[in-house]
Amino acid sequence: MSSTICAIATASGGALGVVRVSGPDAIATTERIFHPLQGKPLSARKAHTLTFGHILDKEGNIVDEVLVSLFRAPHSYTGEDSTEISCHGSQYILSRVVELLVAEGCEVARPGEFTQRAFLSGKMDLSQAEAVADVIAADSAAAHRLAINQMRGGVSSELRILRDRLVHIASLLELELDFADHEDLEFADRTELLSLAQHIAQRLDTLVRSFSAGNALKNGVPVAIVGDANAGKSTLLNRLLGEERAIVSDVRGTTRDVIEDTININGITFRLIDTAGIRHTEDSIERMGIERTFERIRQASIILWLIDSTDLNTQLRTLASQILPLCNGKRLLLLLNKADNHSACTVDDYREIAHDLLHGRHIQSEDFSATYDLPFSDILPLSALTGEGLQTLKDALVSAATLPTSSQNDLLITNARHYAALHDALSAILRVSEGLELGLSGDLVAQDLRECIHHLSDIIGEVTSDQVLHNIFKHFCIGK
Amino acid sequence: MSSTICAIATASGGALGVVRVSGPDAIATTERIFHPLQGKPLSARKAHTLTFGHILDKEGNIVDEVLVSLFRAPHSYTGEDSTEISCHGSQYILSRVVELLVAEGCEVARPGEFTQRAFLSGKMDLSQAEAVADVIAADSAAAHRLAINQMRGGVSSELRILRDRLVHIASLLELELDFADHEDLEFADRTELLSLAQHIAQRLDTLVRSFSAGNALKNGVPVAIVGDANAGKSTLLNRLLGEERAIVSDVRGTTRDVIEDTININGITFRLIDTAGIRHTEDSIERMGIERTFERIRQASIILWLIDSTDLNTQLRTLASQILPLCNGKRLLLLLNKADNHSACTVDDYREIAHDLLHGRHIQSEDFSATYDLPFSDILPLSALTGEGLQTLKDALVSAATLPTSSQNDLLITNARHYAALHDALSAILRVSEGLELGLSGDLVAQDLRECIHHLSDIIGEVTSDQVLHNIFKHFCIGK
Repeated sequence: MSSTICAIATASGGALGVVRVSGPDAIATTERIFHPLQGKPLSARKAHTLTFGHILDKEGNIVDEVLVSLFRAPHSYTGEDSTEISCHGSQYILSRVVELLVAEGCEVARPGEFTQRAFLSGKMDLSQAEAVADVIAADSAAAHRLAINQMRGGVSSELRILRDRLVHIASLLELELDFADHEDLEFADRTELLSLAQHIAQRLDTLVRSFSAGNALKNGVPVAIVGDANAGKSTLLNRLLGEERAIVSDVRGTTRDVIEDTININGITFRLIDTAGIRHTEDSIERMGIERTFERIRQASIILWLIDSTDLNTQLRTLASQILPLCNGKRLLLLLNKADNHSACTVDDYREIAHDLLHGRHIQSEDFSATYDLPFSDILPLSALTGEGLQTLKDALVSAATLPTSSQNDLLITNARHYAALHDALSAILRVSEGLELGLSGDLVAQDLRECIHHLSDIIGEVTSDQVLHNIFKHFCIGK
Repeated sequence: MSSTICAIATASGGALGVVRVSGPDAIATTERIFHPLQGKPLSARKAHTLTFGHILDKEGNIVDEVLVSLFRAPHSYTGEDSTEISCHGSQYILSRVVELLVAEGCEVARPGEFTQRAFLSGKMDLSQAEAVADVIAADSAAAHRLAINQMRGGVSSELRILRDRLVHIASLLELELDFADHEDLEFADRTELLSLAQHIAQRLDTLVRSFSAGNALKNGVPVAIVGDANAGKSTLLNRLLGEERAIVSDVRGTTRDVIEDTININGITFRLIDTAGIRHTEDSIERMGIERTFERIRQASIILWLIDSTDLNTQLRTLASQILPLCNGKRLLLLLNKADNHSACTVDDYREIAHDLLHGRHIQSEDFSATYDLPFSDILPLSALTGEGLQTLKDALVSAATLPTSSQNDLLITNARHYAALHDALSAILRVSEGLELGLSGDLVAQDLRECIHHLSDIIGEVTSDQVLHNIFKHFCIGK
């Protein structure tokens, strides 16, 4: 890694803009285009200082008046010599500064290359480096807390402890293999090893399970809105989004693809998943759409089943057998829409109907009453059209979210790569336990142990291939 | 000015984000939310240093890992104690940092307030402060050069010299007034004064005249596209914009309103002004549109008169009397559109027709040949539809732009406020010359002199009201 890289590290359009330079020649290269207004040249200055001066082009024209921050290896973000050139926030100026640096031999940094260099120079491990992108993208208090925690090494330090204990046992088992002719020799106490493997399996299992909660905090709680085609799903979606969307736009503004249907209620992000209306059909394309609806129901943790209350019994009966089997383990809210439209009923009437429904009295479908006794977390009358009952729905969503009340010290897995590696590590450690219980020979047990260690090391980046690094950092923004 | 202000100074979406703090309590306030990872507290550190540490909320949770730049009055942008907190580029984090600062007593800065404070504390004069916004908005080399020049005091230093000489004369004249009973006493040599007034008038006249060139460099050369409703104006506009617009989008990205129809050819910005088609009509609303077209022709410095070549003679004759009177002193390019569509003619034929037109042979309108002999800078056949001839048009636009080949030391006025003040100063100094030539009494001359001085001082901000300041800085971006 001998090249020196540079990139604009700020978005265009602000009052200030920053160009970052890092690598062995960072200071010398910056010095060739930067002229301090007074005092010593840049390279003669102390680390962690700020110098005011001019960026000049080759003709001696002033490109900008800037402040240069100076960092010397290893005390910088990347661990290399670095500078940060703070310019006026003009895209023209920032581009010119990068052009001048490139003319002096700098390479333009790839996305995430500064963070990748921080990883490669040992300033942070891989899971910490990955968290940098999450920190930048976090748009809610909960997602931010998780990302900061991971960036500061919360996940890695726990995994490192587990792995180090496994490495110790593995080395004992491998020592036994070196003395293979002494059949009865056991350096590693099998009982202690089994107990450790079980402890680690339990811990890994907790982490693997934390992924769905972690993912909900990071990407939003998945909420599927289902119901008959005429139930008013789109109206409800628009009303929820229309009221809350502006708040979301305020706090986002990252380079990620915008998730079209995200809302934020009381600090919790919900990812609203619109679905095709469910009905019996012979049309194969429509059936594919409905099949996809079922898939989305399976992915969601909260289901809003919207029913046109003017057609209540029919819709309930027709769809119960299709929707309810998919809702096990999820929070299911039954929404009685068009509560305003049913001249015979007031909202109070609907509360009563809702109460009856909760106790099964209105439900006459055999399927339903037989298998799914009182499956609703809540039943709410509302009018998607007028917005009546919407606040109650929001309150119900918040209480249905049942997110872990995590403190800053809790560990939740939010990264799909970590999830996959932990999943594989868990399988391996379970095989270790099984092998020990069956009294398998040390070399077989050691093989599974090594696999478990490999997967844990993978997360913190100690056995990581260039390809994996490439895949991780290509999703970063330039200049980070 | 005792408050301490803070603002996010970078656009949302980058790798880095910066929060700026300035005012008497800037360092103490930053210290209350910032905890250095090691070493002395922030307030005990030297100016122009960088400190790594954590921003903590009131519960002690880490909001971000940041670098804090420390500046002490008067050696800062604003001239006050200041800090800049460089965070991860997350809008969530940046908003939280500002929230924490506000909770500690900071005020949220108004647009341009940092620069306004720099002006008020004497770090820069008003014309320099105004140039800061121009530096940020500049999206071409020429506009950038002008803005940097002005920010570095190029305009002010010349005006200051002129004004100081006037102040000297004025004080001599006023001294005479103090000795009003000695009728013949003249401290100020009238001949020398007249010569100086004439010199200054000449210089001010040059500056006033430079405004149209300066404005063209800053905002683009105004190009009006006129012609009959069916001539193909919109197609031409779209084709020009469609090919060049991406380049423009790359270099802009400021917070200004986007000028919809700006293109950049060979580094020169052109502001394309679409107009309503000109034709005789009794419809009063359409006539208002056409009247506006005439107004835009008057504002433009280049006119593209687009003619449907399949209807050449008619369109030429009908419109010549309306368009040509407005084109005096402007560059007029006649574009023969639909050159592809005229089966009888090849592009070479059109070149010939163009040649003939240049020599007036095709023009039979009396109005035309009588008053406007050979008024065309260029005549070009093209096809807006296929793009044929477009490159030739672009080359013609570049050579018609006739911008001053300004060096970095040339003074061009780009600011409408300065233009107005210089205009008034010029009128006043001309009255001074006139008064001296007519032998008017010292007190009358002194009055005009003082008015001239006032207008020059106004530009550099020495006699400026709060209202003027407010109007200037409200157009800045927040954080600058």
